[in-house]
Amino acid sequence: MKKRAAPDGNALRTQRTVERVLAGSLALFNAEGEANVTTGMIAAALDMSPGNLYYHFRNKEQIVEALFRRFEARMDADPVPTVDAARAVEDLWLSLHLALEAIWEYRFLFRNLDDLLSRNRRLREVFNRIVDRKLAAFTSLCESLASAGAMRATPDEIRALGRNVLVVATYWLNFQSIRRRREDLSSEDLGLGAYQVLSLVAPYLRDDARAHLDALGRQYIE
Amino acid sequence: MKKRAAPDGNALRTQRTVERVLAGSLALFNAEGEANVTTGMIAAALDMSPGNLYYHFRNKEQIVEALFRRFEARMDADPVPTVDAARAVEDLWLSLHLALEAIWEYRFLFRNLDDLLSRNRRLREVFNRIVDRKLAAFTSLCESLASAGAMRATPDEIRALGRNVLVVATYWLNFQSIRRRREDLSSEDLGLGAYQVLSLVAPYLRDDARAHLDALGRQYIE
Repeated sequence: MKKRAAPDGNALRTQRTVERVLAGSLALFNAEGEANVTTGMIAAALDMSPGNLYYHFRNKEQIVEALFRRFEARMDADPVPTVDAARAVEDLWLSLHLALEAIWEYRFLFRNLDDLLSRNRRLREVFNRIVDRKLAAFTSLCESLASAGAMRATPDEIRALGRNVLVVATYWLNFQSIRRRREDLSSEDLGLGAYQVLSLVAPYLRDDARAHLDALGRQYIE
Repeated sequence: MKKRAAPDGNALRTQRTVERVLAGSLALFNAEGEANVTTGMIAAALDMSPGNLYYHFRNKEQIVEALFRRFEARMDADPVPTVDAARAVEDLWLSLHLALEAIWEYRFLFRNLDDLLSRNRRLREVFNRIVDRKLAAFTSLCESLASAGAMRATPDEIRALGRNVLVVATYWLNFQSIRRRREDLSSEDLGLGAYQVLSLVAPYLRDDARAHLDALGRQYIE
C-alpha cells in the first residue's frame, strides 16, 4: 500500500470546518425547512463569521448540493445479491431500513422535493440516478427471491412493485406530516413507513419468506 | 317541493363571473404553478379589471380555497358498497379512476401540497377529511370483496393497503414529474398512476376478481 502524505494543519482545519458547516446546516434545514434558513442563520448558529462561511461555500445552494451528494452516498450502500431466499428477505429488509434511515436523516430534502429538483437540474439528475439504481437493486433482489421459489411475481408485477416501493418510501414522511403535524414527526413515523413498504412486497412472497418478512415488518409497529 | 325564487340578473352575472375566475385560475395554476401566478395575472388573462376580481375574491388564497372545496366535492362521489364481487371490483376501479381524474384536473394542488397545507390549516383539515373518507370507503369495499370470497386479506393488511393506495394516488404525479420533466406530464402519466394503484390491490384478490382487476389495469398501459 502506498503511504499517503499526512495532511497539513490547514487542510485538516478546512475539512473540519466543512464538516461543521454541513452538520449544522443539516440540523437547521431539518428543523426549520431549507427555505426558511439563510446562510446568515447558519453562520450565527455555528458562531462563525459570514466571511468564513462564504470562504467554504459561496451560497446556500452549494451547501444543499453537498448534502444531497452525501445523501446519495448513503443510498448507495446496497447488499450484494444472493441466491439464498432467507438471506434475500433479510437483504431486502436491510436495504429498505438503511434507505429510510438516510431519508430520515436528510428529511429536509423531501419536504419540498419538487421545488428543489425543478430549480436545480443537477440535483434532479442525482435523484433520478438514485431511483434508477434502487429500482435495479430491487429488481435483482426480487429475481433472487423468485428463482429461489420464495416469490411469485411476473416481470411486469416486479416492475410495478418497484415503482410503488420507491413512491411510498420517497413520500411517506410527507404524507405523515400532513396526517399529523410536521412538528410531531418522529422516527416512529419512519418505522411505520418501513412497515408500509414491507407490506407492499409481502403478498408476493410465499410461505416461509412471507412469514419472515411479516415478522420483520411487525417489529416496526409493536 | 318549494319553488325557488328565480335568481335576478345580478346574481346570475355574479355566479358567471365566479365560475370564469375559478376556471381561469385553475388553468393558470396548473400551467404555471400556483406560486408563480398573481391575482394581476388572473385578471389580465380573463380581461377583467383587478377591481372587479377583488370584488369577488379578496386575495389569491380565497381562490385557492374555493378550488380546493370543488376538488373535495369531486372526491366525494363514491359508489355505494355492494356485496357482489364483480360489482365491487368495478366499484373499486371506478372510484379510483374518478379520484385520479379529479387529482389530474386540480393537479396544481398536489405540486406543493406540503407547503399549501402547512400554510393553511383549514385546507389541511379539508385534505385530511378527504383522506379519512377515502380510507373508510376503501376499507368497506375491501370488506365487501373479502366477504364475497374475492379478496384474502387480514384487517391489518387492509389498513396498510389503504394507506399505500392513498400515498401512491396522492404523490404519483409528483414522482412522475421528477422522473420526466413537469412540462411533459400528460394524462398518460395519470393512466400509469391508475395502473400502479390497481397493482397494489391485485395480489390480495383471488381468481376471477384478480383477472378482472388485472384486465382493468392493463387498459391503462396498452
